[in-house]
Formats: sequence, C-alpha cells, structure tokens
Amino acid sequence: MTSTSRRTFLTSGALALAGALIVRHAAAQAPVSAGPPDPALVDDLVAANRVLVDQGVLDGYGHVSVRHPADPQRYLMARSIAPELVTAADIMEYDLDSNPIDARGRSVYLERFIHGEVYRARPDVKAVVHDHSPSVIPFGVSTVPLRPLYHMSSFLGGGVPVFEIRNASSQPTDMLVRNAALGRALAQTLGARPVTLMRGHGAVVVGPSLPVVVFRAIYTEMNARLQAQAMALGGPVNYLSDEEAGRAEASISGTIPRPWELWRRKALGGK
Amino acid sequence: MTSTSRRTFLTSGALALAGALIVRHAAAQAPVSAGPPDPALVDDLVAANRVLVDQGVLDGYGHVSVRHPADPQRYLMARSIAPELVTAADIMEYDLDSNPIDARGRSVYLERFIHGEVYRARPDVKAVVHDHSPSVIPFGVSTVPLRPLYHMSSFLGGGVPVFEIRNASSQPTDMLVRNAALGRALAQTLGARPVTLMRGHGAVVVGPSLPVVVFRAIYTEMNARLQAQAMALGGPVNYLSDEEAGRAEASISGTIPRPWELWRRKALGGK
Amino acid sequence: MTSTSRRTFLTSGALALAGALIVRHAAAQAPVSAGPPDPALVDDLVAANRVLVDQGVLDGYGHVSVRHPADPQRYLMARSIAPELVTAADIMEYDLDSNPIDARGRSVYLERFIHGEVYRARPDVKAVVHDHSPSVIPFGVSTVPLRPLYHMSSFLGGGVPVFEIRNASSQPTDMLVRNAALGRALAQTLGARPVTLMRGHGAVVVGPSLPVVVFRAIYTEMNARLQAQAMALGGPVNYLSDEEAGRAEASISGTIPRPWELWRRKALGGK
Amino acid sequence: MTSTSRRTFLTSGALALAGALIVRHAAAQAPVSAGPPDPALVDDLVAANRVLVDQGVLDGYGHVSVRHPADPQRYLMARSIAPELVTAADIMEYDLDSNPIDARGRSVYLERFIHGEVYRARPDVKAVVHDHSPSVIPFGVSTVPLRPLYHMSSFLGGGVPVFEIRNASSQPTDMLVRNAALGRALAQTLGARPVTLMRGHGAVVVGPSLPVVVFRAIYTEMNARLQAQAMALGGPVNYLSDEEAGRAEASISGTIPRPWELWRRKALGGK
Repeated sequence: MTSTSRRTFLTSGALALAGALIVRHAAAQAPVSAGPPDPALVDDLVAANRVLVDQGVLDGYGHVSVRHPADPQRYLMARSIAPELVTAADIMEYDLDSNPIDARGRSVYLERFIHGEVYRARPDVKAVVHDHSPSVIPFGVSTVPLRPLYHMSSFLGGGVPVFEIRNASSQPTDMLVRNAALGRALAQTLGARPVTLMRGHGAVVVGPSLPVVVFRAIYTEMNARLQAQAMALGGPVNYLSDEEAGRAEASISGTIPRPWELWRRKALGGK
Repeated sequence: MTSTSRRTFLTSGALALAGALIVRHAAAQAPVSAGPPDPALVDDLVAANRVLVDQGVLDGYGHVSVRHPADPQRYLMARSIAPELVTAADIMEYDLDSNPIDARGRSVYLERFIHGEVYRARPDVKAVVHDHSPSVIPFGVSTVPLRPLYHMSSFLGGGVPVFEIRNASSQPTDMLVRNAALGRALAQTLGARPVTLMRGHGAVVVGPSLPVVVFRAIYTEMNARLQAQAMALGGPVNYLSDEEAGRAEASISGTIPRPWELWRRKALGGK
Repeated sequence: MTSTSRRTFLTSGALALAGALIVRHAAAQAPVSAGPPDPALVDDLVAANRVLVDQGVLDGYGHVSVRHPADPQRYLMARSIAPELVTAADIMEYDLDSNPIDARGRSVYLERFIHGEVYRARPDVKAVVHDHSPSVIPFGVSTVPLRPLYHMSSFLGGGVPVFEIRNASSQPTDMLVRNAALGRALAQTLGARPVTLMRGHGAVVVGPSLPVVVFRAIYTEMNARLQAQAMALGGPVNYLSDEEAGRAEASISGTIPRPWELWRRKALGGK
Repeated sequence: MTSTSRRTFLTSGALALAGALIVRHAAAQAPVSAGPPDPALVDDLVAANRVLVDQGVLDGYGHVSVRHPADPQRYLMARSIAPELVTAADIMEYDLDSNPIDARGRSVYLERFIHGEVYRARPDVKAVVHDHSPSVIPFGVSTVPLRPLYHMSSFLGGGVPVFEIRNASSQPTDMLVRNAALGRALAQTLGARPVTLMRGHGAVVVGPSLPVVVFRAIYTEMNARLQAQAMALGGPVNYLSDEEAGRAEASISGTIPRPWELWRRKALGGK
C-alpha cells in the first residue's frame, strides 16, 4: 500500500475506525508468517553465522539463511548486520520474493534476493550462504576452473560455474544481486550444483541443511587455496575423478555432524 | 622560543612576572586550538587505530588522523606511539603545517606531514591513514598496477598511483615523508584519488570519514593479496570495468556502517 | 554377537543366569583388553590431539593413536569426534583388526584401519597420525616430491611416497581407507619410512612415540609450505643431502622434549 | 690451573683445610661470574623470547641472548627450553667459550656457540638471535639473495650472506653449529653485517641491543615474505638503493622504542 492509496482509503472511511481498518488491511496484504521457528534451528542459524566468521569464510559482510521448516515459501535470515554480531533477536522471516514478514523497522540485506530466488528454483535446498570467501575470489576472475583436489571438497565434483552479471543485465551493474531478476539469473547459473562463483564478487553455496552448507562453504575456501598452491608447484594436478568425487561426497556427507559439533560449540561459546 | 631567547627575556624582565609573561608570550605565538573535539570522535579515532591493527593493516607503525570538525585547518592524531596502544589521552591537535597545538612534551610522528599536506590539498578529505600494509608493499616496488578485482575494492577504480620519492627530492632520502615539501609531493601524486602507494614504503589512504578510510585501508590490503593470487593462477584477470567500479563504490559505501559497527565494538572491547 | 544370536542364546538358557552368561559369552568372543593404560599416556594422547589442532595440522577431522604399552596387539585412539574435543573419556582400545574392545555404544572412525594395519606391519611404530595437513595436500596431487629443505624436517630424508588408492583397489573408491585391505596397501606404500602422502586425501605420519609423531606431523606441514615457497623463488633448491638428513635427524630427535613440553602444556591448559 | 696442579696443591696442604681450600680454589678455576645482571635487562631478555614467538619468528626452537653489561666476556641466555616458556629463573650466564658459569644442573642449548663466537668476533654486538624464521628458510636454500624492499628492512642494505656449513667442515654435519669452530666459521660469514642466513637451517641476527635485534629479526622475516611476493608478481623489483638503505636505517633505528614498548608490554602480560 503506498502512502497515496492509504490517504485515499482514510478519506473515504470513518475516521474512528481508521486504526483498526489499517491493521486489518495490512494483515490482508502482508504475507502471513509461517510461525515462530524452533529455537534450536534459530540457534543453529546464529551459530552458522559465527562459524563462517571463525573459519575465515565471512568477514563483516555476507549472509546465511535457512528455509523455514514449517513453510517452504519462507526463509529465515538475520537483519542487515555483520555476521559475527548476529543473535537470535536479529533473525527475520522472509517470503520467496524476499520481502520481510515482520520487519519492525529492522533493515534488510540488499542481496537477499540471492536467497529467495535460490529457494524458489531449488526445492531441495534448505540453506544458503553468500560469501566473499578470500581464496575463492581469484577463481571468479580467472579462466581457471575450481576443481576438487581432495575428498573433503568432493561436492565440487559436478563443476563450479561462474555467474557473470554482465550477461544477466542489459545495463552495467553495481555488481550486487539487488533484485529478483538478478537472483533468478544467478539461480539459473547455479543450476543443480552446490556452489557457484560470482565474477568480481564472491560465491553462493547451497545445501540440504545448515551444517552441510557451512561445511561446503568452508571446504570450498580450502580447496581454492590448496588448488592454487598445487598449480603453483608446476606440472599437472591430479584431481578427483568424477566417480571418486561422487563416492567421496556420499561418504563424507555422513561425517559432517563431527566437525559441526565442534564448530557450533565454539561459536556459541560452549567451549 | 629557544632556551637561549627565554633566558634573555627573563633577564630583561621582572622575575615576579616571568611565569605569566611566558604563558602570554607562548599563547601569542602558538596556533590557537579549535577547541576540544567531540569525545565520540576521539573514541572513533582510538577505535580506528586498533581496528587497523586487528585487521593486519598496521603493526607497531603507521598512523591514522581525522580532520577537526570545528576547524578545517586542524587535524587530530595520536602522539608518537604504537597504534595498538593509543588511548584518548594520546590524541593531539595539529595545524596543517603539522605543528602540534599543545604538545605538552609529547613526541610527534616524523611523518605527520603526510596528513597535514593531504588535508591542505584535499578539502573533501576528512580522514587519512598511513600504513605499511603487507600485501600492498610488493605492488609499490613492482611495475604491476593495483586494480580492483571485486566490488569490495571498487574504490580503487580510478587507478592507484605509486609515489616515487626519488622524483620528489633532489637528494637521496631516508624514504620518510619528513617535511612539508615531501608531503606536498605525495599529495600531488595522490591527486583526487582515495589511495596512493609509496615505493619501498607503504600506502596513504584517504576518505570522507574514519569508517570509510578504515574500510578502504582494509580492502586495499585484501585486494592486493587477492590480485597477486589471481595473477599467479596464470591467464588474464577479469577486473571490474570503470563503470562497474563506479557503480559498486556508490552502493558499497552505503553499507560501511555495518562492518564499522563490528570493528569498533571489538576494538573498544565491547565484544 | 548379533542381536539374533543373542536372542537365541537367551531362549536356550536360564533367564535367571542370563546377565552373567551374556557377560561370560561376550568375554569369550570379544578381544580381551590389555588393561587400562597409564593415565599419563592417555593425557599425552589427549594432548597430541589438541596440539595437532593448535598447530594447524588437524581441523575437525583426522586422528592420532598410540600403541598400548602393555600389549603390542592393541592401540588407543579416540571415539569418532573432532580432535579438539577429545578428552580422556573418549579414548578407546582397539585390536589390530581395528575392532573396538569395549565400544559401549561409542562410534568409531571409518579410517581406523590406517592405524591397525600400520601397527601390524611396523613393530617399531608406537604412534600414528592421520591428517589432512593443508600444505601437504598439494604435494599429494602433484608430481613434485616432498623433500627436506632444513634440519627440522630431516626425518623426510628417506623420501616421501604417495599412496595412490587407485592402485590399491580394483574398483573406484570413495578415497577412504575404510577396510583392512586398503590399510595394508597403505602400510606397504609407507614401508619403513616415517611419512606417506595420500593422493587426494592427506598424509599418514608414524613414529616411536607420541611426541615424535606430533613433531613429525608439524614439521611435515612446515616443510611442505616452505618447499613450495622455495620452488616459487625460481632456480634450484638446495635440499639436505642424504647424509646431512640422517645426521640431523639423529640430533634433532633428541631435542623433541623441548617443544613437546611447550605444546603439551598449552594444549592441556597449563599455560 | 689444571686439575693436575690442583691435585699437587692438595697433596702438599693440610687435609683439615681441604674443604675450604677447594672452595677457594674452585672460585679461582671456574669462570668468574660478572655478577647478577640488572633485573630490568633480564626482563627484557624474557620479553625478547616471547615477542619473537608472538611475531612468528621463533616457535618451539631458537634462542636469543644479550651480552652482560658488566663484562663483555659474558653473555646471558636461557637454559635449554622453548622460548615461549622462558622466565627470569631460566636465564644463565655464559663465557665466550659458551661454558655456563653456574649451570646448577640446568641443560644448555647445543648451538650456544653461535652466540659466544659472534660476541667474540664482534665487540659492537650486544644481542644475538638464532631462529628458524619461516619465510627466511627458502632464501637460505635458493640462489636468490635477500634484499631490502622497504625502509623497515633497510638494515639489510649491506647484503645478506648465506652460511654454508659444508664449507665450514671437512665432514658431513648434522647442520648444527655445535662447537666453537663452526661458531667461528659462522661469525666469519656474518662479518660486519646484521644478518646471515644459514643454508638448510635458519638465520642469525645481531644488533646493539635487545630491542634492535628483535626488530631486525621481525623485519627480516617480513622482508623475506614480501620479497617472495614481489618477485612472484613478475617483472623487476625496485629495491632500496644502497644510499636509501643507509639513510633509512639511520632514521628507523631511532624509532624502535615505539614498537618495542608495544611488544614488551604484550609479551609480559601488561596488556
């Protein structure tokens, strides 16, 4: 409702009823909340923010979200704040158009459309990270593809595309995925894969849960760092074969609770 | 007033009046203070020193200043002390000739002329950092120019010059910007840009506020590190276009309060 | 004993005796414990886990074991848990088939066969580390051999082989040493040496004691990092001669208690 | 007085007086202590050990010494212990043959001869560091010379030799400077300079005081790291000229109290 239409409405109605009517009207228009999420999931989301800082994937920028367990059309993510400072009180609910359900004056991340459009395009995805992970940036501006060189990053086996925002917009951009159209283009580049790089920007990592997406973001960074070192030794690099990558990913994904227990405990101060 | 001239004065005057006369005399000669700055700004300046250490831009050397809000002919900077140790009590006021207004025996940085001459040449500049930021040093001694490879360092889009002190002095130097003439030459190399490297020395970063100059110093370091890594991968590096850099800088500069809140809180022990 | 055979047994026996019989039965079938190890050795094993994390050799993955001093057919290692979280209560006893002696519901590392098979093949070995030490990974996927470039890594003098799991299995693998056959193949590649790399995976380091194996794992990582840097300078690298490596190793091994005292104290919180 | 002449003396004297005589005699034979050093100097030596660990120059190995202010034929250094653990009680006095004056059962560093022989050859030297500083190791095994690329490492301007122990011994060695002859050969390679590298081993850094030698060890490491990065960018590296290095060193050496105050305070827990 714009301020113009609202003024019109107030003029044509009874002033005594205005307050109540506005509320009801707003309730009819605004997206309905999927309800309060499980506090343990909120704690996991807070932990995910801090873990990604602890592990050098996020700095004062970047964000991580989780799909609402009660409604696949909703996701949870912090208000616009540095990830290291996120607490449970900062977690907000968004619809897949990336509108906040109940902003209460809290500001939102400019690039929230990354999350909304990936959740829309990928029903299998339950958690999304957007980061400027340092070792990953060089691969986003290079013609050298990121490839898995050990079992820990075997999830990269299906290839890692690079999102070129110049192809997604008819106009020069500010590099930010600041609207739904750019978010859709990014989701298209991502396709069915777990990771896409973004040229001159960073990466988007997705997964079936917060522990898995955090694990993937951490080992994407590590693989980028180690691949650059392996290439610098000279000579060919012996990457995982597609079959090795597929089998390793199946095995390693079962072990993620082990580091997640460690990371979460340290991030939430339990150590 | 040297101790010689002071002795002369005392000899020729009445001893009972000496103390008062000296004070009045000093007041007539010394530049006038612009008055005590807002304590919140002093806290920001203290925080800026510590943030730049936390982020690896400064070590036991380097300095950061802010223009006095009440008088553009004055700036504030710590006495000669390691940045990590700076407290509010160490902040001094300088005029644009880089004379301290009220030294009270405190020693001053040899290279304070960097600050004074940049403030004189650039009315738009409100804060200045001089650092020996590690990843930046190699670009200062190389023919490879520093260029922005992602949106976070888009402020580098206008190019990054290298100050060659050999061109600024008819004599071999000790590499230090230890007088106003060298400071002016440095400001000339900087021109209207936010960053200049200094060959065999470090960098100078400027901005419209302390949060922005701190942000720029941090991401200049990061860009240098990542650009070196991208080049080492071999093949061409796909830098931001000038138009992308300009648009990204406009957008990113609006987000700086987000990391600044984090950095400041941690630096001042609020975490 | 499967739950089926246990049910059968209970049916055929007197219910009043069941508890005692089960215990006796289990004792007959299960491997016999070599008895509780010296608590100081358990503390050393806990310390070894944490030291290897502190020194960047282990992250949320990897494991370290020690042969049981009372029985060379037994070894001690943590349950499946991130190394940083290991406490004395997590230490379990295994036989050389890598069966836990008294699991009590605790889960075990998938790759415990590395330890069992190395202990079986190498009577001289008293402690084993398996890690994904970052700087070592690139050498495992490269044709460049790891070689000792200073006295601290002189134990590498006999050469560092690379275990190629493709040669050890007729089928594509998930890269994990998840059974005894792969463990034996790994031990064969290791031969009489202190270290083998594992292609696309990590490394195995062995030694005559926990302090020595920890020392070797740390300086294998350091040598890999420094060798890569030395090669990047261009020109030939002047490695230790075989004779220098042999003599240096003999001398340096006598000094290991010095850093071990430091590492252990910090790891166990004594600092 | 040799033990032979001592036996002669005892034989010719009264047995009842033997104890007292031996004591007096021992005092005559053993090197005489130069007396207890100023506790502030001992604190500085303790701080130097810890600062060099904090700054990544030392790990569990390496040592730093200071010449005794009361006697140029004596120096002070810790017993054989990891530098991070050194306290005032660990500081021992040595003569220039590197014999401890009053060991009281405390063990000594194998390579103490580095210190004794450098003090003997260089009356201007008041403090010595021996380290395995990581970034320096590659330059010790390469044909690429270490050269100063910025003012902070201008003390390297006179060139940095590499001690080749193969030239100093007719036999293959264990790489350790474990006797006076090797110490003398090292001191000869060092000559009048502040730093020498040691092939396949580390470096020795000397200076006129503890703050200066610590500063030099830290910025030798930094210069090595940055020089490697500058070379990796490709193209020529623009090093300091000899005249710039000389002038810069004269200026920078006057500023060392500034970082030293910081380093010392943090190392001794004053922060």
